[in-house]
Amino acid sequence: MAGAPLAVIDRAHAERLDAADPLARFRERFVIDDPDTLYLDGNSLGRLPLATRERLRGIVDQWGSELVSGWHEWIELPERAGDLLAAEALGARPGEVIVTDSTTVNLFKLASAVLDIRPGAVVTDTGNFPTDRYVLDGLARRHGRELRLFDADPIHGPRPEDVETACSEGDIALVSLSHVAYRSGALADMEAIDAATSAPVLWDVSHSAGAVPIELERRGIELAVGCTYKYLNAGPGAPAFLYVREELQPTLRTPIQGWFGQRDQFQMERPYDPDPGVRGFLAGTPPILALAAVEEGARLVGEAGIGALREKAAALTELAVELHDAYLAPLGFELASPRDAARRGGHVSIAHPEAWPICRALIERAHVIPDFRGPDSIRLGLPPLYTRFTEVYDALERLRALVERGEHRLVEVSGLRVT
Amino acid sequence: MAGAPLAVIDRAHAERLDAADPLARFRERFVIDDPDTLYLDGNSLGRLPLATRERLRGIVDQWGSELVSGWHEWIELPERAGDLLAAEALGARPGEVIVTDSTTVNLFKLASAVLDIRPGAVVTDTGNFPTDRYVLDGLARRHGRELRLFDADPIHGPRPEDVETACSEGDIALVSLSHVAYRSGALADMEAIDAATSAPVLWDVSHSAGAVPIELERRGIELAVGCTYKYLNAGPGAPAFLYVREELQPTLRTPIQGWFGQRDQFQMERPYDPDPGVRGFLAGTPPILALAAVEEGARLVGEAGIGALREKAAALTELAVELHDAYLAPLGFELASPRDAARRGGHVSIAHPEAWPICRALIERAHVIPDFRGPDSIRLGLPPLYTRFTEVYDALERLRALVERGEHRLVEVSGLRVT
Repeated sequence: MAGAPLAVIDRAHAERLDAADPLARFRERFVIDDPDTLYLDGNSLGRLPLATRERLRGIVDQWGSELVSGWHEWIELPERAGDLLAAEALGARPGEVIVTDSTTVNLFKLASAVLDIRPGAVVTDTGNFPTDRYVLDGLARRHGRELRLFDADPIHGPRPEDVETACSEGDIALVSLSHVAYRSGALADMEAIDAATSAPVLWDVSHSAGAVPIELERRGIELAVGCTYKYLNAGPGAPAFLYVREELQPTLRTPIQGWFGQRDQFQMERPYDPDPGVRGFLAGTPPILALAAVEEGARLVGEAGIGALREKAAALTELAVELHDAYLAPLGFELASPRDAARRGGHVSIAHPEAWPICRALIERAHVIPDFRGPDSIRLGLPPLYTRFTEVYDALERLRALVERGEHRLVEVSGLRVT
Repeated sequence: MAGAPLAVIDRAHAERLDAADPLARFRERFVIDDPDTLYLDGNSLGRLPLATRERLRGIVDQWGSELVSGWHEWIELPERAGDLLAAEALGARPGEVIVTDSTTVNLFKLASAVLDIRPGAVVTDTGNFPTDRYVLDGLARRHGRELRLFDADPIHGPRPEDVETACSEGDIALVSLSHVAYRSGALADMEAIDAATSAPVLWDVSHSAGAVPIELERRGIELAVGCTYKYLNAGPGAPAFLYVREELQPTLRTPIQGWFGQRDQFQMERPYDPDPGVRGFLAGTPPILALAAVEEGARLVGEAGIGALREKAAALTELAVELHDAYLAPLGFELASPRDAARRGGHVSIAHPEAWPICRALIERAHVIPDFRGPDSIRLGLPPLYTRFTEVYDALERLRALVERGEHRLVEVSGLRVT
């Protein structure tokens, strides 16, 4: 944590925080071609670890030289990468996590499996990430269920009392929520929300994995999915993971019956007979190159320790909030994230009526890469493995200067808006 | 074609075929570390193209340097790779093919979309590839449909009359078949089979794409899926493609409603509203590194020309059949593929009661990499982009010598059997 509020927050303060940062040396483990560009969008796409660049070269060469016999090793990668994620980032037991497919497809598989065995409505919040809402909407319609959407607080995210109210009438088959809200960065109270409903809760931990301890085992969480290209740094479109608590594995069955989920996969004459473990949730041939990148990303998180990452993420977002209050609020910005660092993930959102041209100007004129979320939010992603406190200081100082000078009124405001 | 039967098939004959091979120079475009090992399993996992190795390095570096702004290009890759495949390998129109997910997931999406709008049974053959049978079995059960399995000829694959008989009673929602049978290499007559049923036929072209012209447009084919890591050389677990004929696109809707299938994806407040084109069949974030490899693989096929590839594949399999007849049949082998080259894809199967130990011995003692398919088949995959006629000769000569000497009785017969 950044400690008690300071009278003056100057660059020297950020320099002291960098000097005291026990994770500072991890920055050297990443490709950083252009240190003058301040990258605050690692919550959309994490940076490239040096080890991953080497590993990807190695696995491409392995394909070239070992050819099909490489599968003797590759066949284990979905579980091996899953167990590595389980060990530190997710706090799950071996055999509970598997890496494959996209978050969307994994959410579809788990939510569909629950609807197959439980009657009732599907509950989520209107502010949940789009793909989650779309998947749940489609499944609810296919299964003839009500999709019950509740409004969570736009800053604080879904709270236990919201979930209790949403679940108070009729049968509830499934609740599905994001652990960290993609806009505000609000961190949901998993245990209290799980206790607020008798239905299973399927957590999307895309925006928390690698930034916040998830502790799936200790918290008794039953189901989760998440992506690996944000704080886990596995590269664009890297495969996602899914978690099924060991005790639930015998009761759930994937709707997508594929050959990689088959017990004794290569005895190909038999009818479908799914692997009884989490491997039963594999579908087709998993993407091997990208799986290797997930292993490397998980290894870095393991080496840094999720506790230390959490502490630094909280301190980085705290500095951003302090700088916002001191220098940006007077320019018309509002904090769009929780003020309590314990209730935030690894990013902070600030709102401004001219957020979109400000984002464009930041990128084009100030070499700061934030992330726009319509209609009025600028997300500042501060992944603790490679973000410096001085980067946060410099980025917000460039932002202040740019808005003060009105430079955001000089840019073209078209262009693609990508998460 | 290899021409009229020869009195003697010696190595000089294979050398002459290599010398006359217009595609011979394409072999130099692949990584071939160990020319003494004869790789006849490119129908499981194709070789690494040199261009792909470079491209993968480039796209990893692009991730490292461009970070999230790389998405300005990457967002188009599923369609760009799809259009490249469409142009030559698949014979489809732009906007009909998209590359994403696995063959299994794509088959699930298309088959499910058809069952949503058509009543009746699902028809396939008992010899279809396992993941196809598993997916169709799961979907039939979920939709409360009959899964009608017919026995195709084990050598000649599904024939129009088989399909006509299987579809003769009751409503048929969907027929799903493989264009080239994964065991025997039999090439199905797409047009005649399509004409034999009033139901839509969903073709799995995994074992034909890149080896045989598929001509989806000319043949009026409505639906297809297929993999890119065999004759398209995109690497282990590379993403698959799906094809939806333009005229059908407005009527079909994916069951997996993901954000990459959403029209105006980054206007994230809106309810689900799928892209009206083939892009509507995207689900989650597609695997970018692997998509780049698909582009490179598709480009090589485009450069060689699918007509020339087909001609060489037929000549290679013809040589294998002639060598089998001359030298292997006397040792107890039987041809397990069609004798007519026009009815085969890019591989040939030969059967022997001791096929498994023979495969092990070939790999361990003779440096020939074939592919075992239980209980008694040895598949010889002869991808025309990089397989030499002399390799076919040498491989079958090593096989003959090994079996004659009884060396297959000296190997351990455990070990993983991988497609």
